[in-house]
Amino acid sequence: MAARGNLFIVSAPSGAGKSSLLSALLKDAPADMQVSVSHTTRSPRPGEVDGQHYHFVSIEQFKALIADEAFFEWAEVFGNFYGTSRRVIEDTLARGIDVFLDIDWQGAQQVKALMPEAIGVFILPPSKAELERRLTGRGQDSSEVIAARMAQAVSEMSHYDEYDFIIVNDEFEQALADLRVIIGSQRLTRASQCHTHNDMLDDLLAD
Amino acid sequence: MAARGNLFIVSAPSGAGKSSLLSALLKDAPADMQVSVSHTTRSPRPGEVDGQHYHFVSIEQFKALIADEAFFEWAEVFGNFYGTSRRVIEDTLARGIDVFLDIDWQGAQQVKALMPEAIGVFILPPSKAELERRLTGRGQDSSEVIAARMAQAVSEMSHYDEYDFIIVNDEFEQALADLRVIIGSQRLTRASQCHTHNDMLDDLLAD
Repeated sequence: MAARGNLFIVSAPSGAGKSSLLSALLKDAPADMQVSVSHTTRSPRPGEVDGQHYHFVSIEQFKALIADEAFFEWAEVFGNFYGTSRRVIEDTLARGIDVFLDIDWQGAQQVKALMPEAIGVFILPPSKAELERRLTGRGQDSSEVIAARMAQAVSEMSHYDEYDFIIVNDEFEQALADLRVIIGSQRLTRASQCHTHNDMLDDLLAD
Repeated sequence: MAARGNLFIVSAPSGAGKSSLLSALLKDAPADMQVSVSHTTRSPRPGEVDGQHYHFVSIEQFKALIADEAFFEWAEVFGNFYGTSRRVIEDTLARGIDVFLDIDWQGAQQVKALMPEAIGVFILPPSKAELERRLTGRGQDSSEVIAARMAQAVSEMSHYDEYDFIIVNDEFEQALADLRVIIGSQRLTRASQCHTHNDMLDDLLAD
């Protein structure tokens, strides 16, 4: 029996390096991993591509999707709506592909309620000072937005204890290695291995 | 705050390759890992060294240790007694060293009851036919002992679902890599990271 993919919830405050880590993880387009492309009502940032970084929709479209129960989870974050399509997730997992949900703690709680076996990974900066440096150094946003992001970051980080794994992103390559170890370990859990090796286990345990 | 070591329970039927895997894992004497040296009443096999593979004791000595509550867990397996010293385990974990308990399912149940955070790893052969080949191929024992070990193996394997992780030891280097991934992942759990980074988390979450 083929393996079933694992669903990973990856959350972090802005500036922790979550997007960079997920990009690095998936840059060689591995066949067994995908980031879920969320729907959002916020405007694209420079360089973002519709359908690749997000599905950019209007607020009206988003609310229609909620009414259709199209979302596995959705939340309003910092004034914008974000949501994850249910059908795409289920189909992808069934094909043995690990799926990564790049969502905030609100979305994480909804996903965990619907799918307790989802694995939460929280990425933290190595210190508050470093977080401030990284948020200031982005160069894309005004100082008011940065101050607001700092407050949002502290709020997001207060939920770290709702996650199964924590990565401290101090040195990038180490954090990436940590992420790979977490992903690999989840293919070795009893539940995952029992699914993958169902027939073999029957053979082993037969008299 | 320094990390606390994780306690791993490693079980397997005879012939699954557990001893070889643990030896390979620890052959470079890593500072942060140790196999717990159990006490046993069985006779040493060729090449086994007292104090290194086991503490070989008499049945009377073993029973006295039980009475002294010296054991974290103990069990009778295949006619011999095996036990793990409590004090050594606790001291080693406190020093940030991962400890591996090479014990059977009975010992595993006792350890899990005393320390639910202990991580169970079960090692399986890739098939029943392969298991039989490996048991026959050992060359150390009589055919009656091998038949009895086969029955014992099936009995041990029936407890695989009491473990947190399963490694199928088909190709040795892959199984060793799997074991390393499991070990590494457990240093990244919320509980482990909260212990390791306690002060940093206070700093991050302070207003």
